[in-house]
Formats: sequence, C-alpha cells, structure tokens
Amino acid sequence: MANVVEVVTKSILKIGQDDPRRVIHSMKVGLAVTLVSLFYYFRSIYQDLGTTALWAVLTVVVVFEFSVGATLGKGLNRTMATLIGGVLAVGVHGLATQCGHIAEPFLISIFVFFQASLSTYARFCPKIKARYDYAFLIFILTFSFISISGFRVRDIIDLARDRWATILIGVFGSLLVSILVFPVWAGQDLHNLIANNLHKLAISLDGYGNTYFKIKENDATHEIDTPKLQTYKNVFNTKGAEETLANFAKWEPSHGCFRYKHPWKQYLKLGALSRECAYKIDALDERLKVNIKVNENDHVHKFRAICNRMTVEASKTLKEQASALKSMTRTRTRTRTRTRTSSCKVYVAKSKEEMKSLQDLLKSTTLWKDNEDQLLHVISATTIISILTDIVTCTEKIANCTTQLASLAHFKATKLQNSQPESKCVDQELEKSTSASQHQNPTNVNLVNCSHIAIKIQAGD
Amino acid sequence: MANVVEVVTKSILKIGQDDPRRVIHSMKVGLAVTLVSLFYYFRSIYQDLGTTALWAVLTVVVVFEFSVGATLGKGLNRTMATLIGGVLAVGVHGLATQCGHIAEPFLISIFVFFQASLSTYARFCPKIKARYDYAFLIFILTFSFISISGFRVRDIIDLARDRWATILIGVFGSLLVSILVFPVWAGQDLHNLIANNLHKLAISLDGYGNTYFKIKENDATHEIDTPKLQTYKNVFNTKGAEETLANFAKWEPSHGCFRYKHPWKQYLKLGALSRECAYKIDALDERLKVNIKVNENDHVHKFRAICNRMTVEASKTLKEQASALKSMTRTRTRTRTRTRTSSCKVYVAKSKEEMKSLQDLLKSTTLWKDNEDQLLHVISATTIISILTDIVTCTEKIANCTTQLASLAHFKATKLQNSQPESKCVDQELEKSTSASQHQNPTNVNLVNCSHIAIKIQAGD
Repeated sequence: MANVVEVVTKSILKIGQDDPRRVIHSMKVGLAVTLVSLFYYFRSIYQDLGTTALWAVLTVVVVFEFSVGATLGKGLNRTMATLIGGVLAVGVHGLATQCGHIAEPFLISIFVFFQASLSTYARFCPKIKARYDYAFLIFILTFSFISISGFRVRDIIDLARDRWATILIGVFGSLLVSILVFPVWAGQDLHNLIANNLHKLAISLDGYGNTYFKIKENDATHEIDTPKLQTYKNVFNTKGAEETLANFAKWEPSHGCFRYKHPWKQYLKLGALSRECAYKIDALDERLKVNIKVNENDHVHKFRAICNRMTVEASKTLKEQASALKSMTRTRTRTRTRTRTSSCKVYVAKSKEEMKSLQDLLKSTTLWKDNEDQLLHVISATTIISILTDIVTCTEKIANCTTQLASLAHFKATKLQNSQPESKCVDQELEKSTSASQHQNPTNVNLVNCSHIAIKIQAGD
Repeated sequence: MANVVEVVTKSILKIGQDDPRRVIHSMKVGLAVTLVSLFYYFRSIYQDLGTTALWAVLTVVVVFEFSVGATLGKGLNRTMATLIGGVLAVGVHGLATQCGHIAEPFLISIFVFFQASLSTYARFCPKIKARYDYAFLIFILTFSFISISGFRVRDIIDLARDRWATILIGVFGSLLVSILVFPVWAGQDLHNLIANNLHKLAISLDGYGNTYFKIKENDATHEIDTPKLQTYKNVFNTKGAEETLANFAKWEPSHGCFRYKHPWKQYLKLGALSRECAYKIDALDERLKVNIKVNENDHVHKFRAICNRMTVEASKTLKEQASALKSMTRTRTRTRTRTRTSSCKVYVAKSKEEMKSLQDLLKSTTLWKDNEDQLLHVISATTIISILTDIVTCTEKIANCTTQLASLAHFKATKLQNSQPESKCVDQELEKSTSASQHQNPTNVNLVNCSHIAIKIQAGD
C-alpha cells in the first residue's frame, strides 16, 4: 500500500518536474475561474442577473488552454460562433413566430435539424477541422440553445445578447490571465521543439562518431552509450505536436522576436527534414549494430577518418543550425554559408572517392583467398559510407532550410565567427589523412596488397 | 467565380463520397438535437422547467461523436463528472454557509481555485489525458457552476439534481440515436483499418514483384505503376488514428463478433508491425528506384526467381492475414500455420543461399576485368535480397501476431483451404528453378563463367 502511494506521488511530482509551466498553468486556470466568478458574485449583489451570467465562468473553464495561441483561437472561435449563431437564431425565431402558434415548433425543429446536420457535415472538411472545428460546434450549440429557448423565453434578443456578453467576459478574462501571468507562447514552443530536435540528431551523430569511427589511442575499447546514441529516436514522434503548435501559433499576436505573420510553415518543413535525417541515422544504427572490430592499418585508418569527419561535419552543421535557431540569429553570413556548403561538398566528394577505393579493394583476388568472410564486411563498409553521404546531404538541406527561415523571419545577422578557420582546419586534417593514405597506396595494386586488413563483425551488442 | 463555386462544390461532395457514413452521421446529429429539443418543448408546455433543462440539448451537441465508442466515452465521462462535481459542490456550499454570510464567498472562491488548479494539473497525467480528460473538464465546470450559483439560487440541491438529470437525458438521447440508427463502431473501424493496411502492403509487394522481378515473355518492358507501388506509404500515417480508435473501442459494449474485452492492444501491435514492414518496403523502393535492366541468362533468372518468389510469398501471407482478419476467421489451422511458417523458412533459407552464390560471383576475377561497373550492381543485388529476407521475416511476425489475435478474440476456425497444395506448388516451382540453375552451374567456377551477365543501372524513372 505504502508502495502504491509512493509510486503515485512520484508520478504526480514527475508531471511538474517534466515541465514546471504545468504547475503555473494549473494555478492560472484556478485564478481565472476565481476572478470571473468573483466578478459574477459582486455583480449579482447589485443586479439581478439571470443564470446566463454563469456562462462567463463556464467559458473560462472551456476556453483556457496551455498556450496563448490555443486560448486565443478557442476564444475567438467561441465569440464569433456565438454572435453568428445568436443572430441567426433570433432571425429564425422571428420568422417562425410570424407563421402562427401551431407551425412555430415545427418550423423551429426543421431549422434546428438542418443547421445541426449541415454544420456537422462542414466539420468533416479538413481545413475547417484544423482551425474552425470548435466554432462550428459552438454555432450548433448557440443556434439550438437560443431558438429552442424561444419556446419559453419571450425576449430572446435579450437572452442572445446576455449570452454573447458573458461569453465575451469569460474569453477576455481568460486571455488577460493567459497573456499577463507567465505567458506560454505556442510559437516559442514550436521554435524550441524544432531547435531541440536538430540538437538531438547532432548528439546521436556525435555518439556514433565517437563510438565507432574515432581512432582511439592505446587501443581503448569502444564504450557504447545506447541512450546517447538513440537520442534521434525522439524526433520520430513529434510530427503531431509540431502541427498542433503551428496551428496555435498562427493565432498568436506579435510577441518578442515573433511577428504576427511569422513563417510557421517553414518550421514544419524543417521538422519533416529532421525526421528524414532521423530515418537515415536509424539505417546507420541498423548497420552499426553488428559491431565492427578492426586491426588498425592504413586502409582502416582512412575509412575511419572519412566516416569520423563525416559525422563530425554533419553534427557540427546541425549544432550550428540549432544554436542559430535558438538565438534567432543568422550566424551564417553569405561567405560562411558558402564555406560550409563547399565543405559539405568536399566531404561528399571524399566519401565517393572512398567508395571507389573500397570497390577497388573488392576487386582484389588475394584478399578473398585469405579470408572469405571479409567480402561481406567490405560491402558493409560501402553501405555505411553511402548512408553517411546521405546524412551529410540531408544536413545540407536542413542548413538551407534554416537559412531560408532566418531570411523570411528577418533574424538578426551576426558577425562571422571563428568557425571558418575551424572548418578549414578540419578540411586540412582530412586532406592530410587522405593524402597520407594515398601516398602509402598510390595505386589500386598497392591498396590490394594490404591483405592484413581484418574486419570482424560480431552480431549483437 | 463559377470556377470557385465548382471547386467548393466538388470538395463538399468529396467529403461525403470519401465516406458516405459522414452524411448519415450529420443527419443523426440533426435528428438527436431535434428529438431532445422536442422533448424539452413538450415538457415545457406542462411543467415550468428552468433554463437548466436546455442542458439536455447542449449535451447532445457536445457529446454526439462519429462512433458509438466515442459518444459513449464522452457521455459516461460527462454524466459521472457532473454527478461527482455536483455532489461535492453541494457539500462545499453547505460547509461555506455554516461559516457565515461574510466568509461564504471567500471560502467558496478558495475551494473553486483549488479544485480548478488540482483538476487542471491532473489533466496533464498521460493516463488521465487518454481516457478521462473530458471528465476532469466537466468536473471543474460543474463544481464551479453549482458552487457559484449558490450565491444566488437558494436551493442548489435542486439545481444540481436538475442539471444531472437533463445531462442524463441528453446522453441517453445521443446514445439511442448513435446505436439504433446506422451505428458506427470504432472497434470495427480499427479492425478494418488494420486489415486494409495489411492488404495495402501486399498490393505494393505484388507491384514490386511484377515490375522488377517477374520474368516476362517476349522481352516485354517493365511498366511502372507508381501509385500501386507506393500504396504502402498510406500505412505510415495511421498510427494516430489507430490509437484513437483503440481508445474509443474500449468503451464499446459487445457488438457483432466483438466482445466487451476484445484484445484491442493486439491491433496496436499489428499496426506497429505493419509500419515496420512498410519501412522495409520503403528501403526496397529506394534500391529499386535505380532501374535494373538485364540481359536474361541463367544467373539473372535464378536471382529474379528468388526475388519474385519472396515477394509473392510475403504478399500472399499478408493477403491471407488481411482476409482472415476481415472475415474474422482462423483460416490457418495449426497444420497450415506450420506449413506457412516452414514455407517462410524455406524462402529465407533460399535467399541466404542466393546471397552466398552472389558472394561467390563477387569472388570471380574474370567478371571485373570485363566490366568494372558490374561490381556495384552485384552489391546492389545482395542488398535487395537482404531487404527481401527482412520483409519475409516481418510478414512471418505479422502472421504470428494475427494468429495470436485470432486465438485471443476467439475467431471461428475454418477448414483447411486449398492453399496447402498451392504453397507446395510454389515450393516445387522454386525448387525446380533453383535445381535447374544449380544443375547448369554446379560449382562456383561455372557460376563465375557466366560472364555475359549485363546489369545496367539507370538513374531515376
């Protein structure tokens, strides 16, 4: 029993620890409901308000959402739908009363039936469902409520007006609390989510680089940090959240660095590219799960150097994009982007060279006569290089997309940072490693002669 | 202008054409709202009902959902939450009035604040969010509504009772229409969705088999039917729908072949396996996009025969599972499952053999001296075979999962059908093709001699 209490308490606390804004949001809802109910209480002392005035409290409960965008969207949907539904219902009621006492309920029933059916049908339209679903629901609700009330209440114009006014008070109260007390902006959340996803991909790539490709001194063993490697998997499941946040963000007014017409669609594109990259990392993971242990030699060194450089390059590009997004700056001036892009191209070109030399290696006869199994291992190496090429190409696409976003959203441009020399340095190092191995293996024949290469594949880890 | 009208009309009609049940659902909502409002009308002639009675109509509008499960879930959530919220509010109101006229509003405000905050916090809990989110919303709503009404209404017990009773009427009316008039069961929808997804995978596999692997007479060209090939892509985006439907299905009472405790979780497992299979087909698609044109010879024939058999086998397994699911039968008796499983194993074994002989081919020297490019093509063939092996293994997993579902859900067992001989026939054919090529190429040396093999890779299609 004590165990159950402990588990429940822990899971309750975890909700708040995961995102402390949840605690604040809960108290904000409490505050908004209490404020509006107090308003109702003091008004009711001096004026004889009908129970319709309670709609203000109900509106707060229903409309108050986690982010400003969601609250605003729901509030506007509710206000406009109540207004239109109320006006139409009053009109229909006026028409029905003209037709006499007996025809009235039939006419009103027919109208209610048709508006409910047509509005429900409209809610299936994807565009309406995405942004105005709640408005159509409230439209049906208000229309039915007001026109049916006409059976009893004489002055339904007053009823409609009261209902609309109290809903307006509720929406206004919710928005006030939502915006003034620790506001949560859906746009900011979307922005952070996308930046974090890019960062997660970079962390995974770093992990693969360090675990599988980095040349370690003193023959240190490769420690496999699975949680770090698999960080990329989080990116698979954020599609729904991204779409919802982008939808809410569209309702939000200008705030901070986000203008009203911020290019939210661009974030969805970035999200899709992140997932594309994550799938490619997943393919890499599949290949690397069969742990490769090698005796160090020039060829293996070169292969590793290329793979390591490619992961380093891809990860660095992603990290740069993530931090540029987070700081909402254009760190990459035109010159720098060109440098990075051309550096990307260098790695893709180098990877192609490496694939070529692997194929040359495959052509050797001596090798297979020594060790039959090795053939499969060299094929595996070819595939790894080809996946890494895809990953580098994908990060290049991500970089272009971020640059486009930065220009569309008018992010501030910052000065050129130190990374151009750094990138040069990486290139030089790679150049050295490549030329060294080329020097040692000037022709295919020489490459073929390195028959002491021994790549062992061990299943599982 | 006429164009816009045409486009809008078409898109409106398309909603109904895509799923005619949407039209019926819209009319059902209209019917339910009208029925309950007529009830209110006739009651109001004889009895002086307060405006609270209108809650019945509002309940119908808010609770009536597309499927019985969703309506029932929302209805039960609303009814129970109103009951509990009402009882608590009456209790709190009684407590507050004991403390005097001045303390009353403060006490009630404090209670409203805390219950709204705590309930909102609870809504963040994933388990609550999945099934009881609406209940917590209605709890906050009812508690606030009833306790604040206490400021004005003297007899709030009557108010709470009326509110609960009218909501019960609304829920009852919705359920009556939802179940009696062309009911839509979420469980049935989930069942069909999963079966259709399996069928879509089978269609794609058939397409790849026919386009790329089938040996055609008279050198007919391979027609690429892209929409058919890419049917599998639909499977990627149904995860959300599956989870929602499974959630609704849990609320549904026993209907047709579905009992109350139907193993809905098993469908989610099948859904996950379908997506796993779809990703593997996507990998195959990536490989096959580079169109392979070959001069027919024994080796190519054997490669094609293996690939074709594997797609045929995988597709047949998937189709069988899909139709067994659709008809809710256990077509596969124990003997037959064993046959199918062993037949699966035969293909996996054959594919391994084929990979081995491809490797043997790679070892040949004569081949590469004739044509350097071919090396990459043989590597590509190895990869294709390895992906197909994964696909066959995955369909085997799907078959096991369906069998498990059939046993958990007590599907009816049917007699052994003709497919055992059919499967035998396929095996024999494969055996023939394999032994024929083995006969023609009894050793690696002979395989190596087929140097007239010409695989051309053309980029794009």
